[in-house]
Amino acid sequence: MASSVPRTVYLGTFISAPHAGPEAGLEIRDGAVLVSAGGVIEKCDWSVRSAEEARAVFGVGEEVGVRTLGEGEGNGFWFPGFVDTHIHAPQYPNTGIFGQSTLLDWLETYTFPLESSLGNPNSPLYTSHPTHNAPTDPLTRAKQIYRRVISRTLASGTTTAAYYATIHVEATNALADLALELGQRALIGRVCMDEARTCPEYYRDESTEVSMANSRACVEHCRTLDPSGERIKPILTPRFAPSCQLSTLTALARLAKQEHLMVQTHISETTSEIEMVRRMFPDSDSYAAVYDDAGLLGEKTILAHAVHLSKEERALVRERKAKVAHCPASNSALGSGYCPVRTLLEEGIDVGLGTDVSGGFSLSVLEAVRQAYLVSRTVAYHAGGNTKYNIGLAEGLHLATVGGAKVVGMEGRMGAFREGMLWDVQEVGLGRVDGNGKGESSAVDLFGWEFWEEKVAKWVWNGDDRNVKRVWIGGRLVHGQD
Amino acid sequence: MASSVPRTVYLGTFISAPHAGPEAGLEIRDGAVLVSAGGVIEKCDWSVRSAEEARAVFGVGEEVGVRTLGEGEGNGFWFPGFVDTHIHAPQYPNTGIFGQSTLLDWLETYTFPLESSLGNPNSPLYTSHPTHNAPTDPLTRAKQIYRRVISRTLASGTTTAAYYATIHVEATNALADLALELGQRALIGRVCMDEARTCPEYYRDESTEVSMANSRACVEHCRTLDPSGERIKPILTPRFAPSCQLSTLTALARLAKQEHLMVQTHISETTSEIEMVRRMFPDSDSYAAVYDDAGLLGEKTILAHAVHLSKEERALVRERKAKVAHCPASNSALGSGYCPVRTLLEEGIDVGLGTDVSGGFSLSVLEAVRQAYLVSRTVAYHAGGNTKYNIGLAEGLHLATVGGAKVVGMEGRMGAFREGMLWDVQEVGLGRVDGNGKGESSAVDLFGWEFWEEKVAKWVWNGDDRNVKRVWIGGRLVHGQD
Repeated sequence: MASSVPRTVYLGTFISAPHAGPEAGLEIRDGAVLVSAGGVIEKCDWSVRSAEEARAVFGVGEEVGVRTLGEGEGNGFWFPGFVDTHIHAPQYPNTGIFGQSTLLDWLETYTFPLESSLGNPNSPLYTSHPTHNAPTDPLTRAKQIYRRVISRTLASGTTTAAYYATIHVEATNALADLALELGQRALIGRVCMDEARTCPEYYRDESTEVSMANSRACVEHCRTLDPSGERIKPILTPRFAPSCQLSTLTALARLAKQEHLMVQTHISETTSEIEMVRRMFPDSDSYAAVYDDAGLLGEKTILAHAVHLSKEERALVRERKAKVAHCPASNSALGSGYCPVRTLLEEGIDVGLGTDVSGGFSLSVLEAVRQAYLVSRTVAYHAGGNTKYNIGLAEGLHLATVGGAKVVGMEGRMGAFREGMLWDVQEVGLGRVDGNGKGESSAVDLFGWEFWEEKVAKWVWNGDDRNVKRVWIGGRLVHGQD
Repeated sequence: MASSVPRTVYLGTFISAPHAGPEAGLEIRDGAVLVSAGGVIEKCDWSVRSAEEARAVFGVGEEVGVRTLGEGEGNGFWFPGFVDTHIHAPQYPNTGIFGQSTLLDWLETYTFPLESSLGNPNSPLYTSHPTHNAPTDPLTRAKQIYRRVISRTLASGTTTAAYYATIHVEATNALADLALELGQRALIGRVCMDEARTCPEYYRDESTEVSMANSRACVEHCRTLDPSGERIKPILTPRFAPSCQLSTLTALARLAKQEHLMVQTHISETTSEIEMVRRMFPDSDSYAAVYDDAGLLGEKTILAHAVHLSKEERALVRERKAKVAHCPASNSALGSGYCPVRTLLEEGIDVGLGTDVSGGFSLSVLEAVRQAYLVSRTVAYHAGGNTKYNIGLAEGLHLATVGGAKVVGMEGRMGAFREGMLWDVQEVGLGRVDGNGKGESSAVDLFGWEFWEEKVAKWVWNGDDRNVKRVWIGGRLVHGQD
């Protein structure tokens, strides 16, 4: 993993989301990028057009390889890897399964049985869903699911993911091991949930003490795997306020401060959840205040959803510099609500995108970009057709890369083609239709007359993992053929 | 085309949407279906489990082949082909390209230039989007695009499509030729638009007389290709009220009555369009009344969108037995509004799904099912969380098959596995994850413990053309390897 990769020149069309601010246009440039043996961008040049020119401009010889786009000119491009700021790895087998449920009954019916099956051999899932085709040992099952999640998210261009695991130490550590093995940058969160009023007996921590001891064990495991925290980073993960005892929330906050740890949790996903928080935490002024009163709201905190925050809560979130993981697919599919992302951005809150598997039905961040666009149109429509609420494609891609980097504490390290940034990149290839209307099977068909902005739009709306030809993380090829 | 196909037994798991009404559950049955040489279901049996049993029950010998599911037991199923009740074939190259536009500026900016390029060598598209890679002869370009659209929709499981073409006779006839060649059931509509106030000079019929003569020419061509109208059926296609002179609308209505023709048009897609109709047709009481006053509203009429119909308009539509093509992806992406499908259904209006390429961003009817679900959740959310507005997956699949059949005038002929119905069927195969978390590249991963309802849910939410292994229409294999 820490092994170095060959110093390499990448040549072709480089496209990235607007870096300065989400309102600008796409950055589309031809040229070359020199990547160090450590996987960091050394130099960029937007004038060269050939391997020879690139070697001359960068002052490197034949020992440095030059990689061109496999799909050829006009049909492929380099794009920064996606950051998924909110994904529940153990829930992946349930993607698309939610019936007509909404958040709270969805948790009871679909989610807790599946999550518990990764550590508890008596999980109700083993009774309700018997099988002869899948592992029935919890840890084996966890490894099966986690390997698949990481492989499939990598194949969809996700280079960094902020994972929720389960409450189980062994399975959570296995997720960290697999992310390291497969080369994905990952935030690994053991889920804390110990409130008997909301967590089923078969799936909860027994006490604040157990919750803290198990959380520490997972933090230590991650730090042993990767002391730098650049690849594998532990993140404290109280599921959400109603699932944690107040003593646990405050103990987690203390640990976060002592150990400089990141924190992730959910906030204001649905109105009935907010009502529950109000009943359970009568001493706090708001949902956001519950976290703030416990000491959990800081610049290293990722808040998922934030659909229904009040103006006062948004001001508090911004004041504390906490980040938001916007999860549009999940919110729309579960009928949770429509997050006013434009408002959050304008008020100065950092926002990234989350797939929220499996409240979200897809592990593709590109699908999250689409859904963010659609959610913003819903917000605009119900604000009397006020188009200022629209989130366009360039903005969506900004949230998926630059925005996501801010949310996971990697601001300035990824999301663009700039000196000093990591080579966390996907090579995108689109499908070409020939003059007779034939072409390979691809959900994105180029007819030959599209401008780059149009090609990117076609990719965003119809692209899938078939268009992700190769993925590098820190300069290492982690998906696709060399 | 009219050639017969071998009499065949299909064996395995047969799944279809609820046939009686959309509220019922999926029909999931193991068994066998005998399909005649004419491509019609002769018999169904839900007790047999093997080729031998099937031959015995159906009383057929070795001369009748037995086809099993290629993906094997538990991982694949037979499902009725999809009906796309609204798709603009010439707009396919623009899928995903709409920027921040809404309907009326989208037509001007993106749609008319592209459509006109299929017949007019002076189309502005040839100037704005020059290319060395695509045909520049309009008819050659039309054939390129149409072959691709038909191939890709077939590959996505669409067995019947109600197409809008362009105003051009030659290109429209080429669409009919290609549908016949490739084996897709198609309604072929030459677009009528001759109102100078709304149609650009470079793309409109010159007069009512030209509009009618050209429409007749396309009707005749379709009837020459397929006198039965079972495969290729002409459909009169006034684009929408604002694009047609009143004299043209009434002349089309007369022709439809004389020749027993179907009619398709748009209605109430956006509020600004409704406002325009009000200004342009001051003598009619409503948008629906414009069509009714012209004589165009009947049981053979397909109305696309119907997002903003008033209660009175819905009553009129139902009274006339006109059908609705619900186009959720398009409506959401263009910010047009959220069609209250549940209300339409409860009031007794027949509804099918349309992809509305390229207002809709995807040619997949499965995507339309997903978007119908999401739109219904938006309607429910903004009705105070009233879940009665939700359209579930079984209902969405009902609209995509049984509902669509009603809309295109094929009620009772397709959409289920019943004696006398056509063998218009897709073979669906899902991806299997092995115990180590590995498996083929598929957007749908089965882990081995899912029930059939859950497998179908996973397919609907994440399935794509990779899961459509083979497609038959009228018993003829039209997509996939034999």
